[in-house]
Amino acid sequence: MEHILPSYLSRRDGDLWLTEDEHDHLKVSYRIKEIVFEQKSPFQDVMILDSYSFGRMLVLDGIVQTTSMDGHIYNEMISHVPMSIHPHVKKVLIIGGGDCGAAKEICKYAGVEQIDMVEIDELVVKACREHLPKVSGRLSDSRVQFIFDDGVKFAKGKKNEYDLIIVDSSDPIGPAQVLFEKSFYQSLHTALKEDGLMVCQSQSPIFHLDVMKQTYTRISNLFKEAKMYTAVVPTYPGGLWSFTIGSKHYSSPNPSKVRDKDTHYVNEQIIQSCFALPQFLV
Amino acid sequence: MEHILPSYLSRRDGDLWLTEDEHDHLKVSYRIKEIVFEQKSPFQDVMILDSYSFGRMLVLDGIVQTTSMDGHIYNEMISHVPMSIHPHVKKVLIIGGGDCGAAKEICKYAGVEQIDMVEIDELVVKACREHLPKVSGRLSDSRVQFIFDDGVKFAKGKKNEYDLIIVDSSDPIGPAQVLFEKSFYQSLHTALKEDGLMVCQSQSPIFHLDVMKQTYTRISNLFKEAKMYTAVVPTYPGGLWSFTIGSKHYSSPNPSKVRDKDTHYVNEQIIQSCFALPQFLV
Repeated sequence: MEHILPSYLSRRDGDLWLTEDEHDHLKVSYRIKEIVFEQKSPFQDVMILDSYSFGRMLVLDGIVQTTSMDGHIYNEMISHVPMSIHPHVKKVLIIGGGDCGAAKEICKYAGVEQIDMVEIDELVVKACREHLPKVSGRLSDSRVQFIFDDGVKFAKGKKNEYDLIIVDSSDPIGPAQVLFEKSFYQSLHTALKEDGLMVCQSQSPIFHLDVMKQTYTRISNLFKEAKMYTAVVPTYPGGLWSFTIGSKHYSSPNPSKVRDKDTHYVNEQIIQSCFALPQFLV
Repeated sequence: MEHILPSYLSRRDGDLWLTEDEHDHLKVSYRIKEIVFEQKSPFQDVMILDSYSFGRMLVLDGIVQTTSMDGHIYNEMISHVPMSIHPHVKKVLIIGGGDCGAAKEICKYAGVEQIDMVEIDELVVKACREHLPKVSGRLSDSRVQFIFDDGVKFAKGKKNEYDLIIVDSSDPIGPAQVLFEKSFYQSLHTALKEDGLMVCQSQSPIFHLDVMKQTYTRISNLFKEAKMYTAVVPTYPGGLWSFTIGSKHYSSPNPSKVRDKDTHYVNEQIIQSCFALPQFLV
């Protein structure tokens, strides 16, 4: 029996192509070598595809989430920047981050004692640990507690517990929308210790300036200190990506904390320069 | 008679789409509102297309060169960064740069007396001045001398003449390939005054790391000082873009020079931070 392809996969001249259908006005197609993994979870279609341009990619419902080629940029930036600001992180909560890349980076800090990783879709974690080693590092560290649950619900029950919370969400459409709401940031504020800090991805300053500004406003209304920084993420539309930090106490990065952390993108210079914002964002 | 579309334009469900055919493994398609301008020059097919995602775009032989949405990032970065390093630029040579954006930015400096803009294709300049005002600013400044000629040939005849040379070339395939050769940089060195400096775009550190490294090596072998910096260019593949400076004398930027220059991307913070390179480039 012939395998029936989902609408976002097609064969042309013998080649397999993935075409993202996320944007009405822009279509990106990736030539695919091989479908490495595919399975439906209760939440989405989970695929690991091997592409010619970006290596293996995590694809959820036909949308590229992270790739072997550039996944490290996003994951290093969402992890090492907040780690450079808080001087003694022991307990970390990661909401989302099913590709395991953020947890992998946090594990590089010997002082960290516990990482609660709350991801709603167990199948994403399984697929990435097994088939996307360049991003997940096949994460296996006894300090990581995998909790397959709703991140919003999980965070609501916590009080004064974490030094650092990382919100590694997908785009604010569908299930991830609640992760951009004011009440969610309020519950993160409560879940943090009195000198804790949070970081979230706050979308593209080029294509989602409204979401980015709203996220910054919501976080700066709740936290003593709000800071925005940027990085380049080649496979995300617009290339430029923003992250927002909300901190109860600490505000200055200590770039030397990232020294010898075996990173591919982040270094002391990048930590120092990532807070410089283009004129149109100032 | 029906208008015959070139192969990179197609109609689907009544909509017009431009599909770039530059990469074997990655296809980007832009939904087009309108063909604003189209004409064949002796060198290429010149089009100005109005797109939904990026506004008006300069398209040469079906490849997007610059857009209303993000053209300013590239043009500000290739112009203001070298201007912040040289303290008293009077005479400038721009090779390429047919969209007129780099010349427009250089014109913001009152001390500049003459800009020789050597672009091989007069039709590109005409199309951009008339139909791409967000990039070209409809450039009209008596200090700009338009010279429609081969940039390599033009530079060869010059000696000790320019304070700043900007090489604003397209990709090193076809006619622009010579603009990445050692002998070309040698002639720029000769064309510069004894305290002059040059800058060129040196491709994507993600997709063309070999070209970028080769350019840096060639320039650092010729000039007293070589420096690389990066910027995000959303419509270029990989998002991250590199620029390389070769300087005979000056090396440190003076960020305050860009103050009040009516820029949209560049500011003092960006000038200071753009030289920070990711770990994989260090």
